[in-house]
Amino acid sequence: MPEGPTLAELGEAELIRRLGAFAPTGQFGDDAALLALGRSTPACPHRLQLVVNTDVLVEGVHFSDATTGATDVGWRAAAANLSDLAAMGCQDALGITVGLVAPGHTPWSWVEGAYAGMSELLIAHGGVLLGGDCSDGRQRLLAITALGRLADDRGGPIRRGDGRPGDHLISTGTHGLSRLGLALLQGADLPSLSAAERERAIGAHRRPRPRFDAVAALAGCRPTGLPWRVAGCDSSDGLAAAAEYLAVASGCTALLEQAALPVAAGLEGLAEAESWCLWGGEDFELVLALEPAWADALLEQLEGSSRIGILTAPQRAGALLWSEGGEPIRPPGEAFRHFT
Amino acid sequence: MPEGPTLAELGEAELIRRLGAFAPTGQFGDDAALLALGRSTPACPHRLQLVVNTDVLVEGVHFSDATTGATDVGWRAAAANLSDLAAMGCQDALGITVGLVAPGHTPWSWVEGAYAGMSELLIAHGGVLLGGDCSDGRQRLLAITALGRLADDRGGPIRRGDGRPGDHLISTGTHGLSRLGLALLQGADLPSLSAAERERAIGAHRRPRPRFDAVAALAGCRPTGLPWRVAGCDSSDGLAAAAEYLAVASGCTALLEQAALPVAAGLEGLAEAESWCLWGGEDFELVLALEPAWADALLEQLEGSSRIGILTAPQRAGALLWSEGGEPIRPPGEAFRHFT
Repeated sequence: MPEGPTLAELGEAELIRRLGAFAPTGQFGDDAALLALGRSTPACPHRLQLVVNTDVLVEGVHFSDATTGATDVGWRAAAANLSDLAAMGCQDALGITVGLVAPGHTPWSWVEGAYAGMSELLIAHGGVLLGGDCSDGRQRLLAITALGRLADDRGGPIRRGDGRPGDHLISTGTHGLSRLGLALLQGADLPSLSAAERERAIGAHRRPRPRFDAVAALAGCRPTGLPWRVAGCDSSDGLAAAAEYLAVASGCTALLEQAALPVAAGLEGLAEAESWCLWGGEDFELVLALEPAWADALLEQLEGSSRIGILTAPQRAGALLWSEGGEPIRPPGEAFRHFT
Repeated sequence: MPEGPTLAELGEAELIRRLGAFAPTGQFGDDAALLALGRSTPACPHRLQLVVNTDVLVEGVHFSDATTGATDVGWRAAAANLSDLAAMGCQDALGITVGLVAPGHTPWSWVEGAYAGMSELLIAHGGVLLGGDCSDGRQRLLAITALGRLADDRGGPIRRGDGRPGDHLISTGTHGLSRLGLALLQGADLPSLSAAERERAIGAHRRPRPRFDAVAALAGCRPTGLPWRVAGCDSSDGLAAAAEYLAVASGCTALLEQAALPVAAGLEGLAEAESWCLWGGEDFELVLALEPAWADALLEQLEGSSRIGILTAPQRAGALLWSEGGEPIRPPGEAFRHFT
């Protein structure tokens, strides 16, 4: 049959590009969707800006019983989703809906654990369970939609494409710890790590947190007179991917300082330290591009944040280069593939 | 292992009851979730009331290649979801997010068809594709979240529990045609039907429509001075189930008139006519409980609507009875089970 390509043949990036053609232009360009509601009038000047994000987490693709208990599956699923709200500029969440699919033989105790994990995350970081649906299916999965809104009087949207040459690139935290935790859960033999370091890495993998606090700090330290313009996204796909997303969407090149990589404590001695910091993924920090004065104010304000590089005018060598030497930063061979 | 019951052992109703315990009290009681946003002030009197609904449609459970092409799968999925917005009182939709799961060997042409079907539905009935996610998985499925809002100045919410004894029960249209269409698609031999009747039934099954128009008519014909109080839900699970949901949530009993069943044209001669009208499901009409004066105004206003019974004080014989004789209305043995 002349059915054309399969999803595996297309790959995820091309699939998303094609699906984006069914949405209004530009709608698929950010971590989540922005939806302006209500009329702005002199008496009611504040438009409500809603942020909506959907993530699907599938057993065997995004989580596994081998490394993640039910409660952690729930926490991680909700945290990943709320992280996308933070990446759009939300300082809290309104709530989530959950589509649960599971085979009939699934123990209720697993479902109970997953919902308990989501509830714990919501209690810790804001929002409630708004509703959902459930169905029989061959594979366990959670399809979560999170709703948030921008705090119009205290902040604005964060878009991937709002960066400009000269912006400083800020990471709200260190990277690589979640990937280290995953390696430990998968049985990696890393005898140099202390018990406390192991525990911290596994905790980072199992219990990531959405950085609403970093967005609040960002909004709180904007220099007087500077208009709201922040580019950013979260580092769920890895620090390097986040910087590249910003650079490409903003029509810039990102230069990362190799000497300033925000490598998490505990990775220092490991051969994989740089690779896991850049490409490990799932640290769920924010990577932001800001005017230098605002960047400096944020570094002052937000513990754990650091300057990792700058945006420049687009360079022929690529969208993601080392400051030192100008060579392209390339992923190792093992990048995560969504369709196999 | 003392793991307790499986989902199949619990059944869907008990599963939903248990999941509802993770949400604020009453949050799981309606077709969709209602979320009040914004402060009401003298200068800005209108609170924004957002409606959010999530439906998951799984291959082999909710749709099958044998009866439904990709475009119809997409249309039906979006229509079912928007129908829940209408059932909450929305007169249009803001948009949907779509979580797509499919095996890597899925042809792009199927995905393209499903998204084209969703787009057609949105173009016809309002709303845009806001965003989504996609993932590899063993089974095709669509997890759709629809967003709508109540038109504060022209209407209000429709809740299942807002019915009162004395309310008239109104169906916005006839029932059973979608089930007839499904039977035809599954190869049922019904020689008494004309070609036009077959086509109409199959069309009803493949292309249901959300009844936003009925909600607009309802809002437009409210008798002067009558406060907004409407109980209702959609008939996706069948006319009888819808009437029973209203009755139970409102603490009433629903009496249906057997002589006034809104049986769709084309079913008259069939042995299954009454059963498919009551229990066939997926007609996606609205079943409403209204003050008699408002009910009369709606019947006048909305072509195809009809009075199907009344709500009374709760009766010992059950929540869903025949007007004629007072016997309970019982489902046939083949009710749809979500977990097997």
